[in-house]
Amino acid sequence: MANYDDLRPLFEPRSVAVVGVSRSGKQGAIFVDGLKDPGFKGNVYIVHPSAEEIMGIKAYPSISALPERPDLAVLVLPWEPALRVVKELADAGVPGATVFTAGFNELGTAEGDARAEMLLRAANGKTRLIGPNGMGIYNPTRGLGMFGGMPTKAGGIGLISQSGSLVSFLTRAISDRGLGFSKAVSMGNQLDLNAADYLEYFADDPETTVICGYIEGVPDGHRFKAALMRAAAAKPVILWKAGRVAAGAKAARSHTGQLAGDYAIWQALARQAGAVLVRDAEELVDTVTAAHALTAYTEPGKRFAIIAGPGGPAVSASDACEEAGLSLAELSAGAIETLAGIIAAAGTSPQNPIDVGMVLVGATEHYGQCLRIALDEPTVDAAIVIGLSREDPQGFARMLAKHSRETGKPVLFALNEDFGPQSTHELLADTHIATAPSAERALRAYARVVGA
Amino acid sequence: MANYDDLRPLFEPRSVAVVGVSRSGKQGAIFVDGLKDPGFKGNVYIVHPSAEEIMGIKAYPSISALPERPDLAVLVLPWEPALRVVKELADAGVPGATVFTAGFNELGTAEGDARAEMLLRAANGKTRLIGPNGMGIYNPTRGLGMFGGMPTKAGGIGLISQSGSLVSFLTRAISDRGLGFSKAVSMGNQLDLNAADYLEYFADDPETTVICGYIEGVPDGHRFKAALMRAAAAKPVILWKAGRVAAGAKAARSHTGQLAGDYAIWQALARQAGAVLVRDAEELVDTVTAAHALTAYTEPGKRFAIIAGPGGPAVSASDACEEAGLSLAELSAGAIETLAGIIAAAGTSPQNPIDVGMVLVGATEHYGQCLRIALDEPTVDAAIVIGLSREDPQGFARMLAKHSRETGKPVLFALNEDFGPQSTHELLADTHIATAPSAERALRAYARVVGA
Repeated sequence: MANYDDLRPLFEPRSVAVVGVSRSGKQGAIFVDGLKDPGFKGNVYIVHPSAEEIMGIKAYPSISALPERPDLAVLVLPWEPALRVVKELADAGVPGATVFTAGFNELGTAEGDARAEMLLRAANGKTRLIGPNGMGIYNPTRGLGMFGGMPTKAGGIGLISQSGSLVSFLTRAISDRGLGFSKAVSMGNQLDLNAADYLEYFADDPETTVICGYIEGVPDGHRFKAALMRAAAAKPVILWKAGRVAAGAKAARSHTGQLAGDYAIWQALARQAGAVLVRDAEELVDTVTAAHALTAYTEPGKRFAIIAGPGGPAVSASDACEEAGLSLAELSAGAIETLAGIIAAAGTSPQNPIDVGMVLVGATEHYGQCLRIALDEPTVDAAIVIGLSREDPQGFARMLAKHSRETGKPVLFALNEDFGPQSTHELLADTHIATAPSAERALRAYARVVGA
Repeated sequence: MANYDDLRPLFEPRSVAVVGVSRSGKQGAIFVDGLKDPGFKGNVYIVHPSAEEIMGIKAYPSISALPERPDLAVLVLPWEPALRVVKELADAGVPGATVFTAGFNELGTAEGDARAEMLLRAANGKTRLIGPNGMGIYNPTRGLGMFGGMPTKAGGIGLISQSGSLVSFLTRAISDRGLGFSKAVSMGNQLDLNAADYLEYFADDPETTVICGYIEGVPDGHRFKAALMRAAAAKPVILWKAGRVAAGAKAARSHTGQLAGDYAIWQALARQAGAVLVRDAEELVDTVTAAHALTAYTEPGKRFAIIAGPGGPAVSASDACEEAGLSLAELSAGAIETLAGIIAAAGTSPQNPIDVGMVLVGATEHYGQCLRIALDEPTVDAAIVIGLSREDPQGFARMLAKHSRETGKPVLFALNEDFGPQSTHELLADTHIATAPSAERALRAYARVVGA
């Protein structure tokens, strides 16, 4: 077990030492890139037996030779030297280490298990271990990456991942939605610190407002359950559990040494805790986006108004609404009459779904009028807008935010094509407009979050 | 009813007349763009009471004043003049007309129904009508678009859509996968020609190899059933049926005047015919891509090998495989041994899913060796590759195609990020490698096509 204060130096290190970078920079260079590229706000050291400098960073021959005790060490070493260095770290009182090295318990052999046991003994409970077979910590506020090119925007999303490559994919995909991260951890085999520790950390972390995770298995089901109950009581928790069926469970075993567990137990646990389970990366990204948007609302409801330009997508969104456990709101006769006065007579509909027609000129104002009429209806809890103004994405986004804010009701927005620059996506995210590449996906994600 | 020869002039017109373009080009301009932009291979005329020329195209005062009888007329007119022009077309023996005009039976009023009846009487069975409330025909080989900017690549995909905006979205999305279209039709209210006619046309059309459709409802269930049975016996048919539940059915009624029908009947019908039902645009695009790839194989099997670099996506793909009704193939001891000799010892797996590690240098060759070993196994029916060579997407695509061709087994490819230019996507499509944005989606689409 670990408490919030134990993990803070790992997630918010003031100094980092990278051990095992080769003189050529071939081995371990990505971790140095992960510190240099975002511009780590603290001291970075390299430990190397003989080099004076690698990749422009001063090197020291050992942990004890460093000018200060680092908060976090990153180990890119074969297993035997990794054991020696972890012992050095523990002796020096370094609070945490990312062990990137594979070849431990994920091998599924007696030898791999023995190495894992030795690693734990070397750490001696003094240096807390992330991994082995993990990529460690991402913290954009501190300028700490796992590799170069990670998103720089900070925000409220906390990510726990059993796969380093999925940290790369998910941080990028969630950032493309305009959202930012508090921290992410690639936890590898969970030999020492495990998903329960990270859940508890994120539950307590004031910078984190939504917790999400990719998990293949957990070492201690009871502890995990308690941690999940606590985390989900504090914040939305969205989990992508892999290893749901036999094929995936077997793959999880050889990937990170996890026993996947019975998925039915995970489903029961999630239901009890009020956490959301998803089954792939797209569902995770959509649901995190919706959950973030809904942190601004206390009791988001299920009765939707659909405001669309294109007719086919409006029909399909109506299906998706009901199939996801939401419903189409009934509009009052007065609202329908007002809408009928605004939109064209043919090829449109003033009923819900409101088909505003394929408006090209003044789309923002036209959509805005119809959206506001719908949101002002007491029977309408939330709205989804399909269609866009290619001429003025920023203005369209501001219009959505304005009506959502003024009426206090959630607004979803389906971006059927590339819509505006990254700044528009950030405006939408910052004003709590949930987006997705289709209305269907946006509605399904909303339904997952509100428990429809 | 209509037979193949009745519909050929509409789908492959030698000449087109557009009626109702305003002098300023404000009204109806998009249809002229749809002829000018791709470069229609035939004569284009505009009919206008007084103008000599609009948008650079010579105008004539009436249908009878045209220098030749057009194969297809496109009407962008209010309902009353539309009736008069349709009568003129019928009198002149023009075989087909797209009626873009809305305000007919989709209104759901006695007046709308009466107008629809008048429209049918005006056509008098001599001019076959597409629509009303439809956008007509897209045929990239003829250079015929519904609006400007449609994809120019021709290919084997035939699309029937009850929504014009979905023609725009779907042709773009399917084209982004490197595929091309034979023809598409935006059929609107199906007052005269309906989905059954179009299905039969595509079944007989030698240029069409895969048929797909977005359908809200059909006017004659029995005829549709017969047409679907015939079409699906000839070619893969993938249908996105909207109006599945009450909310969508109501929306379909006001969008295109359709009675959506009981979805359970559609499911039974699809099962009987061997057609595939999907529930949204993404599923349609994924499934069309898979169906096109599988037209190259007579009996594609269900036992998959997964070849992945990133570990998490490999685990998730294993889940998706089994959850979709496919299975992970057992590899022989010999194959596992050979694989173990090729891939690194740690952070990888020579078992299925084969985790080749995060290879950066020589990825194409490395992936290729592992893929080939897997495909050469008699227990492996097909493979999915996750990962990529950012340095050489074209070479990576050629490698996939080579092993698929030489072993006669389907290969799927999950593109987790933008992978290469459009030419690479076309190379993949042309060599029958099915792609999707994730392994999960690629596997689910494959499963739908093979009936897993």
